[in-house]
This record gives sequence, structure tokens and C-alpha cells, in this order.
Amino acid sequence: MALTLMEGNEAIAWGARLAGCRFFAGYPITPATTVYNAMLRYLPPEGGVCMQGEDEIASIGFCLGASMAGWKAMTATSGPGISLYSEQISFAIGSEIPLVIVDVQRLGPSTGSATKGADGDIQFLQWGNSGGLPVIVLAPVDVRDCIILTMQAFNLAETYRCPVFVAANKEISMTRETVNLAALDLPEITQRPSADPAAPFLPFEAASDDAAPAFLPIGAERPVRQTSSTHGPDGYITTDPELIARNQERLQKKIMSQAHRFSYFDEMISPDADTLIIAYGITARAARTAVETLPEDGPPASLLILKTLWPVPEDLLRQKAASYRRIIVVEMNLGQYVREIQRVLADKTIRFLGQMNGELIKPGQIQEVVIHG
Amino acid sequence: MALTLMEGNEAIAWGARLAGCRFFAGYPITPATTVYNAMLRYLPPEGGVCMQGEDEIASIGFCLGASMAGWKAMTATSGPGISLYSEQISFAIGSEIPLVIVDVQRLGPSTGSATKGADGDIQFLQWGNSGGLPVIVLAPVDVRDCIILTMQAFNLAETYRCPVFVAANKEISMTRETVNLAALDLPEITQRPSADPAAPFLPFEAASDDAAPAFLPIGAERPVRQTSSTHGPDGYITTDPELIARNQERLQKKIMSQAHRFSYFDEMISPDADTLIIAYGITARAARTAVETLPEDGPPASLLILKTLWPVPEDLLRQKAASYRRIIVVEMNLGQYVREIQRVLADKTIRFLGQMNGELIKPGQIQEVVIHG
Amino acid sequence: MALTLMEGNEAIAWGARLAGCRFFAGYPITPATTVYNAMLRYLPPEGGVCMQGEDEIASIGFCLGASMAGWKAMTATSGPGISLYSEQISFAIGSEIPLVIVDVQRLGPSTGSATKGADGDIQFLQWGNSGGLPVIVLAPVDVRDCIILTMQAFNLAETYRCPVFVAANKEISMTRETVNLAALDLPEITQRPSADPAAPFLPFEAASDDAAPAFLPIGAERPVRQTSSTHGPDGYITTDPELIARNQERLQKKIMSQAHRFSYFDEMISPDADTLIIAYGITARAARTAVETLPEDGPPASLLILKTLWPVPEDLLRQKAASYRRIIVVEMNLGQYVREIQRVLADKTIRFLGQMNGELIKPGQIQEVVIHG
Amino acid sequence: MALTLMEGNEAIAWGARLAGCRFFAGYPITPATTVYNAMLRYLPPEGGVCMQGEDEIASIGFCLGASMAGWKAMTATSGPGISLYSEQISFAIGSEIPLVIVDVQRLGPSTGSATKGADGDIQFLQWGNSGGLPVIVLAPVDVRDCIILTMQAFNLAETYRCPVFVAANKEISMTRETVNLAALDLPEITQRPSADPAAPFLPFEAASDDAAPAFLPIGAERPVRQTSSTHGPDGYITTDPELIARNQERLQKKIMSQAHRFSYFDEMISPDADTLIIAYGITARAARTAVETLPEDGPPASLLILKTLWPVPEDLLRQKAASYRRIIVVEMNLGQYVREIQRVLADKTIRFLGQMNGELIKPGQIQEVVIHG
Repeated sequence: MALTLMEGNEAIAWGARLAGCRFFAGYPITPATTVYNAMLRYLPPEGGVCMQGEDEIASIGFCLGASMAGWKAMTATSGPGISLYSEQISFAIGSEIPLVIVDVQRLGPSTGSATKGADGDIQFLQWGNSGGLPVIVLAPVDVRDCIILTMQAFNLAETYRCPVFVAANKEISMTRETVNLAALDLPEITQRPSADPAAPFLPFEAASDDAAPAFLPIGAERPVRQTSSTHGPDGYITTDPELIARNQERLQKKIMSQAHRFSYFDEMISPDADTLIIAYGITARAARTAVETLPEDGPPASLLILKTLWPVPEDLLRQKAASYRRIIVVEMNLGQYVREIQRVLADKTIRFLGQMNGELIKPGQIQEVVIHG
Repeated sequence: MALTLMEGNEAIAWGARLAGCRFFAGYPITPATTVYNAMLRYLPPEGGVCMQGEDEIASIGFCLGASMAGWKAMTATSGPGISLYSEQISFAIGSEIPLVIVDVQRLGPSTGSATKGADGDIQFLQWGNSGGLPVIVLAPVDVRDCIILTMQAFNLAETYRCPVFVAANKEISMTRETVNLAALDLPEITQRPSADPAAPFLPFEAASDDAAPAFLPIGAERPVRQTSSTHGPDGYITTDPELIARNQERLQKKIMSQAHRFSYFDEMISPDADTLIIAYGITARAARTAVETLPEDGPPASLLILKTLWPVPEDLLRQKAASYRRIIVVEMNLGQYVREIQRVLADKTIRFLGQMNGELIKPGQIQEVVIHG
Repeated sequence: MALTLMEGNEAIAWGARLAGCRFFAGYPITPATTVYNAMLRYLPPEGGVCMQGEDEIASIGFCLGASMAGWKAMTATSGPGISLYSEQISFAIGSEIPLVIVDVQRLGPSTGSATKGADGDIQFLQWGNSGGLPVIVLAPVDVRDCIILTMQAFNLAETYRCPVFVAANKEISMTRETVNLAALDLPEITQRPSADPAAPFLPFEAASDDAAPAFLPIGAERPVRQTSSTHGPDGYITTDPELIARNQERLQKKIMSQAHRFSYFDEMISPDADTLIIAYGITARAARTAVETLPEDGPPASLLILKTLWPVPEDLLRQKAASYRRIIVVEMNLGQYVREIQRVLADKTIRFLGQMNGELIKPGQIQEVVIHG
Repeated sequence: MALTLMEGNEAIAWGARLAGCRFFAGYPITPATTVYNAMLRYLPPEGGVCMQGEDEIASIGFCLGASMAGWKAMTATSGPGISLYSEQISFAIGSEIPLVIVDVQRLGPSTGSATKGADGDIQFLQWGNSGGLPVIVLAPVDVRDCIILTMQAFNLAETYRCPVFVAANKEISMTRETVNLAALDLPEITQRPSADPAAPFLPFEAASDDAAPAFLPIGAERPVRQTSSTHGPDGYITTDPELIARNQERLQKKIMSQAHRFSYFDEMISPDADTLIIAYGITARAARTAVETLPEDGPPASLLILKTLWPVPEDLLRQKAASYRRIIVVEMNLGQYVREIQRVLADKTIRFLGQMNGELIKPGQIQEVVIHG
């Protein structure tokens, strides 16, 4: 068994490579820069392109162009960079441009602490764009997840033609762990469904309301219309309310109706527990230890680790939480994802454990809540 | 009685002037541009400054500078501009810089339809920045509100030293209505609490955890430290977890603990109704008509018009909804604020009526839901 | 007699103020920043505007806008900033927008040495824009010149509606000297010739081919057309060769035909000398000392100090040099203005003394050339 | 014999390809855009990179980076873009970064006439940067020259490590001509002189004052220091006057001392003529026709076509002009290169024929000057 020592950012790059990513553009920012560094080693020797834009706005613009031309594309930044991506994230949503965006969260607000982790962008990733249509957000827990979830992120981006975020943070991304690359159970790689270039083609006509349109690249023989304005199936700007509504609703439905297919999670079930801990990201590791090391004479607890944060896996949550009375939500912020849990599991007693001080939440802090409430 | 015919954007500018706004910077974008036009008429003759930046990023930067120098400042844009403001909104939150930001929403995503209204940025305004700390969002219903809520927005920005949004949209902002300016019941104007320039001064030390620090302007005799990084009371960057936590929690608490003071609303109560309609913005006007013209032989309905959207007025909602079985939430998007209602009023039957097609929601559509569910 | 101790940059700002400058925008760069600092003290209290743009491109853009609106405007930078002004200098030339641009030269190329002086931009100032039409360049020798030539620069900019440069450098601009402000013989202030707003108006129609058009401000009641494209008298874009030619030739002739009116200079005449030293800027001061302290038993030399560099004062040069056999040109570069002297005084023996090492040229170096050739 | 129909811009791209160019970045501007289009067809299939930057500043920045990494790089723009390149042209001069810059001149000033040719940037190309150190400017006359001079431009850029301009204009670049590619007498390709990566290395130490330093790429195993500030041989910033002077003088001398090696020209000699026409660029073609079709009973004229404009080929000019009394300089501007001729050939009678109206100068206009003076 050959073990590789790898940090999370390198693992994300590795996953991108396995997923067939051929284009990366970004602008350096701690703690995301080493994703760029790794892509720079991987892509050019294999005929891909890895480049630094003049700034974040240019960088995501390059990615969208590459993706429209048919290449699998990724970018990586931290919170302040997600801000600068915002306008073009909205463009990618409305114009159905696949893109994987890695957010290596640091402690905010603003530039905050560059070398301290947080889960500060969890609502930002879904809502940080105009219009409020859904995106997909995956949250890795460790280096293994960084590889596999990044691969899934590409599969989802290509299938649903939308931005897919990998919500890492400084602690996951810059900590080295051993991983047995040969032993990983890798997902199959999905390709973007292509249209027949010889058949009649409408760039935003989907087979059904639950699906993304079939794809043809811009710049090839067949002209492909693209626009950032409201449009009908033909890609022409329109003010027809019916055409607009149909497209907007499809943009929502193509993702929401399929969310059950990619509600990734892990769990640790303690029989007889009436408490379920819900955690994600780096904190899930502390939660795991907390559950494993709870005193035998105290109350037991189960653990649900969410790896898909958006769309909120409502069915999964209801099903997994059904038998518990009390839910403890743990995250490295002052209360973000707990709002979704409150909404979905309104009939439960919900406790929140959060902090926003640049430190990891420790297993003992979680146990304290389990035991003393 | 002298009536003035005024559009919403002009009314916002008028309110800003009454509130003592002395600085406006922005970049033109339909349907927000006429706020700029009006400020250009008002400010310079009175010694204020009104200017166009090179782009949205420069524009909000100018505003933050003016505000740090002690001037009441405002900017206005639409969805794509809010995206470009995102980085500096985060800076304003973390560095406690008062600013009023007008978002004249258009139909998104992306550039969408420049001349069609929507409530597409309702989650974006709260969450469109890194870190997830609270801001304040007010939503006017008509020209009168545009004046009064803009004045309140300045009062809140100055009191809590944070960004305050006025969430208008194309229909409110570009429709002319008559208003009797002389008859308006105007709020008193609040000034930013100033520190004693002769006393010892720490720029981020607040009297209590529920309060913003007292203010001294940059550029005056006493040096004032300002930073976008995590800092202690002295404004120096710090990595001390305790100092960081205390400041972050105060940034949240200074607003959340006082939210009941500014939970603005209107209501129309129908005795015997078991249905409460919740609406905001332009749609509240359709809801009002819907309630007024419900058929006498059908079920009655009450109406709660929210004018403060963020922080979510949870106490108000619980109190006002207490006697109703069914809640109907109406908004011009595919479901944004309804998520907050679901979270807060989880024990109620909640129905959502939304659309995102560039058209206004009509009273008849709301009545249809009241009557047939 | 009250003496004031003042550095050159402050004197430039003082001259601007005396000339009626009401608008300044710039971006900080050593050694030009203190012009900005001084304008910041002068302008706002008198109702003027002083501001920093997002960058040099935005800054000169603000100045052009202010000038088109009828305000006397100035900006200041150093070599790298002149580069960034280039595109809009060309716009100001073609669209006849008055502007005073201060270039506090540092040692180049590129960022070079920020705190070392040079005459490195002497050709750049005339030619650093597309099209090759004339501008005006004045070169102060000392603090007194900084005041008076800046005033002249405004007079010329307003009269000829073109960019006028003040070519200072680090040594002139950041050295403090005493000056008796009360004793200065100040030039009269010229106002931009205005058109009659009530009469028919063509924005680019001049009274003659030797003149700039009369001015009306943009933004006032009468619409004024402005364009960066080739245009006829009406300001509409045109491809008519005759209209284009007439306008281009007027842009050249309005300045060149009047150059004799503003060929500023100083001189020190030594009877019997057959050598004439030509110098400008800070080096003129070393040349003055050199001439004054030449050994009595050696060859004498006269000195011509040019204060108008562009348009090259050809008539003045020919007249002043007529009686000399030998010309020595001294400048702090590797040979720039000497090219013009070679062109105009081709029948003379021309010697060049230059250096580009960040040091001032010393009187002894000049004497060495006078004595030993 | 296989003839190819090719426009000038395509020919420039073809020459670049033959010269081994592997990197192109630019921003679209008429009439330069088709250089980009052609490079886009040539480069990627051969492993090169062709890209559009966010703007002209980013584009030339990418080129400089590629060149520092050891790739032959080119960019293309028109006058307004040269303005935006200015700052980095100065960086390339001072930091000895090889780069070929194509300027497809349009009629200026400013945006002027996008689809009309001119020779408006002839002084701009040499002087449009801070510091005034020499660059190289080549001027093609036809499609054949576009190929061959572009190849020479690369050879010169690599040999002298400086920016080399190809000064085309709209008429040369966008007119299609037949060219027999197989019959061209192509120059040999020069490679950038490399340092021994295993030997001690100072990045700015040249073998002599007449030479550029040997090159090592940034980003390879051996660290290579690069700076935009004044520096000594080791690439560290310095304020030592002697080190600065030595480097600046070498930057001048490495080009000026070798200028005779690349003073390209064509000529048509009419025995007995006392008139020499000097022309360059597209106008040389009219001059050729003018000379060929002069009436037999009138004065004959010879023609010198300059293909190297900068450094001014002074020796060549003096030698070629020696036997003529009268010089006629023809160019599409209001008098730019004629200044250099006046300077160098001061003892001749010099006549200037120029125009700046968007039209080509016709053979008859030139003949008129030959015949009637």
C-alpha cells in the first residue's frame, strides 16, 4: 500500500485532474493559492491551461470562456475573491455555464484573518448573487473528500450546467494527510451532454423542465448564442413573461428536482441516542471524535456529516433526524447553516454550537453540549 | 394641501437629503440611475458631493472613505452592482462603517431584464458578503416609504455603524406617485455617536456588547486606526482568539439585540380570518387590494406588510401570526423570504405564491390562493 | 519683506490656486504627491474639489470631465503616471480640453528611482500620445518659476484649449526655497473664451485656423457635443477628408502659429563669448553658477535658459544663438532636447553634456566642457 | 509558382510564426484585430498560447511574463492601445525583456478614425515611454515586408532584448495582396543568447557595453532576479550613481552602436536626379509609382524607402543623400519623421509633404512637389 502525503488543496487539484479538468484560472489569495500551484504542475504538461488573471474578475471570466468552449474549468479563491466572482457567478447560473469554484474559507468578514479557517461563507455561496436561483455546494471533511467531492463537483457542474462550489477552509486545505490514492473508490466521470451539431439546435432548449440543455461549444462551426439577459430557448433576449418564467423555473427545477441524487453524507449511528449532531467540513472531524469518546455513563449521540450543503438535503435530513429528539448543529460561524436545520427540522429541539475566533471547535466543546445541553 | 408628483428613486434621494446625507457616489445602472440624477440636483448646491466613480468598486470605495471621514453617505445600484459592492460591504460590516445602499432590484439572474422589477436580491442583501454577520434591510412599498425608510436607513446606519440596504425595485422606483410632502410624519434624525476627541480613544471599543463604538473621523487631528483585518478594540490586527471572538460577537449582537427597535411594518386585520398574508415591497400593494376586495362570501384574510426584512423580525412575526392557522407568503421570486417565514413560523401551514417573469403579481392571483388554497 | 519657505510642488499648487484652478485629481506617486497634498489644503475650503481617483486613468478622466464642465483643472504625477495618462492626453488634444498636467520627473525608465530627479520625459511629454499633434511644455527652474509658470500653464491651457505640461523633477519639486510671495510679478489671469449661449453654436468651430473654438460647458442648458473621434465643427463624427484635414491642421496651427507669444526664457550674456550654453530645469541653476564662476583667464560663455520647451522656440533659438559658434546643451538624460537643438541650429558646433545616474549635473562639469570642449 | 492572397495583418502573424513566436496576447481594436485572429489559428495547434487579456494593460503584461519565461512573444494594437502599453514598454526597456509590438496605426488623435490609416505614431513609438532610451521601429511597405520585417523584429528583440515595433497601418494591414510564399528570401532565425545555467549568473551583466546580457528564464531552476527599478548587474535595486549610469548607458549603447546592422531600406536611383524622395510605409508605394511615372521632360527623382525608422539610420541617410540637393519627405501626418531628416540632413533643402485626413497620399501629389517644388 503506497501512501501519499497531500494537503487538501493539492487533493482538490488532484481530483480536478482526475475529473478531466483542462482549464484553471485564478488570482493568488491565502489560503487558496496552493490549488493554483498544483494545477500549474498538472495542467500544462497534459495540454491544459493554467493561468493567473489580472484580478479575480478577469480570472473567473477566463474560466467561463473556457467552459463555454467546452473545457472543464475550475477556479479557486477565498472569501474576498468570492465577492469579486459574484457578478459572473450570476452570469454562470443564468447562462448555464458549468464551473467548479473552490472557496477555501478564511476567517472574515473582509480580509479578516488570512491564515485562520472558518465556515463563514456557507450562506454566501448559495446567496451571493443576484436572482436567488440554486447552486450546488459540497463540503469536504478531509483530503480524501477533497479528491472525491471535487470529482463529484465536476460531474454535477457538467450534468446540471451550473456553478458548483467546493467549500473548504484553511484547516482542510493546508493540512497534510496521508491518503492511499490507489485504494480510493473513485466516482465515474460524467461528460457534458452534447447536442448533435448537425441537428437543429436551440441553445437553451432542454429535453424537460428537470434538465439542462444539451451543449454545443461556442467557437465551433455551429454558432451558439449566449447572453447574460433573460432569454428564451433560442438564446435571444426576450421580455415575454411566459418564456422568461419557463426558463427561470427550469433553472431552479433542474437542480432542486434532482437534489436527492447528490445528497452526500456520512453518519455514525449510536443506538439509543436521542441526540443527533449535525456537522460539516473540518468540524465534522471533531464531532466524530466527540461521539467516539463520549463518556460511557453519559448520554450517547449520533452524528450526521453533511457533504452536500446546497441544495439543502431536506428529505435526507428529515429521514435521518426522524428518531431523534434533540439536534445539535456545530459550525465555525455565528449561526449560518443552523438556520436551514431550524427550517427543515422545526419540530425538534435545536441547539447551536458555533464560534468565530479563528480556532477549531474541539471535541470537548461538542461533548459539553451533548452532556450538559 | 400641496401634492408633489415624485418617483420612488427621487423620493429616496429626497429622504437622503432630509436625513443629512452629504455624499453620494455611484455608477449608472438601470433602474437605479435616477437616484444619482436626483442626488446630483440636491447635494452640490448644499455643499455636498455627488460623483460617479470609474466603476461600482470605486464608487462604493469613495462612499466608505466619505463615511470614515464623518459624512453621511449613500450609493445606489441594481443587482449586478451589488455583486461588485460585495467585497466592500464585507469591509463596511467588519470595520463598522455606516453606509446606506439602495438596491433597485431588476429581474435577474445576471443582467437579466433591466426594466423589469423583482425581489430577486432579498437573500443576497443579507448574505452577499464573506463572514455572514448581520446587516439591516428595509423594503419600501411606495413613494412615501421611499422617503421615510431612507431616513430610517440613515438613522440605523449611523446608530449601528453598519451597511443598511433600501431594497426597492424597478416598479417602486420608477413609478410616479403623488405625495403630500408637508403632511409626512418624518422621523427624527440621528447623528453618529461621537467620541470625545480629547479623551483617550480606542476606535473599536464599544460601551457595551450591544453597541457600536463611538466615532471619530479619519483625517482629523486625532489619528484613527482602521483595518479590514480581524482586530481588537485598538484597531490593530490581532490573532488573539478571545479578542477576535469578542469583536465578532459584538458585530452580531449590536444589531440583533436591538432589532425589535426597528421592526417596521404595516397591517390590515380582518377579524375572524384564519389566513395571514405576508408581503413586502411592491407586492404589498397588490396584497392590500386583494384583502380589500375579497368576495364577501369567501374566507377573509389579514395582511402583514414587512418593511424591515433583515434582521428577520422574529418576535413580530410570531406575535402577529399567533392567531392564524395559515400563512400565505407572496414575493416576486421563486421563494426567498418564505424560507425565513418557514423557519420562524414552523407550526403554521405555509403557502408560497411567487413568480419571476418580470410581471407584477396581481391581486386576483393572491385572492385565488386565499380562496382555493 | 516676508519670505515664505516653500518646496516646488507646493509652489506649483500655489500657482494653480492663483490661476483659478478649482479641480485637482491625481493618484499618489513619489515625487509628485505633495502637489496633491497642497491642493487638498487649498481647494476644498474655497469650494473647489480635490480628489484621488481609483488610479491614474480614473484621475485624469475626472480632470477632463471637470474641464469640459468649465472648471480649471490640474493633475500631477511622475513618469509611470504619464504613461497611464497617455490615452486621455490624446483625447484632450483632439477634443480641445484644457488641462494642466504636472510631471515631476524621476529617474527612469519604468519605476526607476523614485527619489532621484531626471529630465527623462522631455520627448515623452510632446510625443507620448497617438497622432503627434502639438502640446505645450513649460520647465520651471526654481520655486518662483513653479508659481509663475504654473499660472502661465493655466493661461495657455485655457487660451489654446490643450494639455499644458509643467515639467518639473524631483530636485525642483522637493527642495524648499525662500520666496517673497508679495514681490512676485504675477501674470494676468486668462479665462477660457466663452461662446454666447444664446447664439447658434458649433462646438469645434473656431474664429480662425489659428484659434481654439469658443467654449460652452457640458451639462449646462445648451447641449454641447463632445467626441474622441474625428469630427467636423459640429462635433459629429465624420469621414469627410476635407473636414478632417481642416480640423487636424487647426489643432496644429492654433498652437504653432502662436508659439512666439509664449517662448519663455532667461539669459546671461557674456560679451565676447563664442559659446552659448543652453539648459533648462534644475540644470539651468548649475549652468548659471558655471557661467558666473568661469575662470577669468579662460573662455567666457553665455547662457540661455529655456522655460518653454515645446513647441520648440525655433525663432528664439536662432535669434539668441546667432552670434555664437559653439552650443553646449546640458540635460539630465542621455540626449533628448539636444536633438531639437541639432535640428534648429544645424550650422553650429553642438556639444552635449548629459547624464542619467540620479545625480545633479555640477557647475564644474559644465565648466569642464566650456574650457576643454 | 503558388501565390497566396494575404492581408498585411495575416502576413505579420505568418512572419511571427516563422520566427518561432509561441505567445500572443492582445485586446481587440480595429484595425489590428486580424493579427490576433491569425495568431489564434496558428499558435494553439503548435503548442503556443494565444489569448485576449482583460484589457491592453493585462495583455502586454502577459506578453512580458511569457517573454521572461523564455518564449518569443508578440502583441498587436493600434494607437490608443499603444498608450495603454506605455508603462510596460518602459518596463521592457529597462528590464531588457524582448517583445515584438505591432502598431497598426489608425488616424488619430485619440480614437480618431478606426478604419483610416495614418503614420501618426511615428514619434510616439520611440518616445512614448518614460526615460527616453532607444527602441527599434521597423516599417513594412507591403505584405512581403510584413512577413520579413516581422521575422527581423523577432531577431532584433531577441538579440538586443528590447521592445521592437512593427509600424504598420490600416492600409498595409487590411489590404490583401498576392505573395509567393515559397519564393521569399527569409532571414535566418536568431535565438536569445542564453547563459549557462550551471555557471555563476548575474541577470544584468553583459559581455560588453554594446551587448544585452545573456538570458535565463524566470521560473526555471535557477532563480532570476527581475525589477522595474534602477539596478546593478545583480538585479538588485541600487542608488549607486556609477552602477546606474553604467546600466543606463549600456541600454542606449547596446542598440545605438549596432544600428548600422539593421538599417533596412529599399531604393530607386535615377541618375542625374538632384531630388531624393524619402518615404516609408504605405506611402512608399505611392512614391515608387511617382518616381516611375514622372514625365520625361521634367526633373527626375530618386527614392529612398526606409524600413528601419528607429534608431534613425543616420549614417545611411547621410550616405544615400550625399549627392542630392533637395530632399522631399512624404508621410501621412503633419510632420513627424521629417524632423529627424531635418536634424540629420541639415545642409539640404528639405521639403515636406504630409496630410492627415484619412486618405492615402497619391503619386500625383508627390510628382507635383517634385516638379513644382
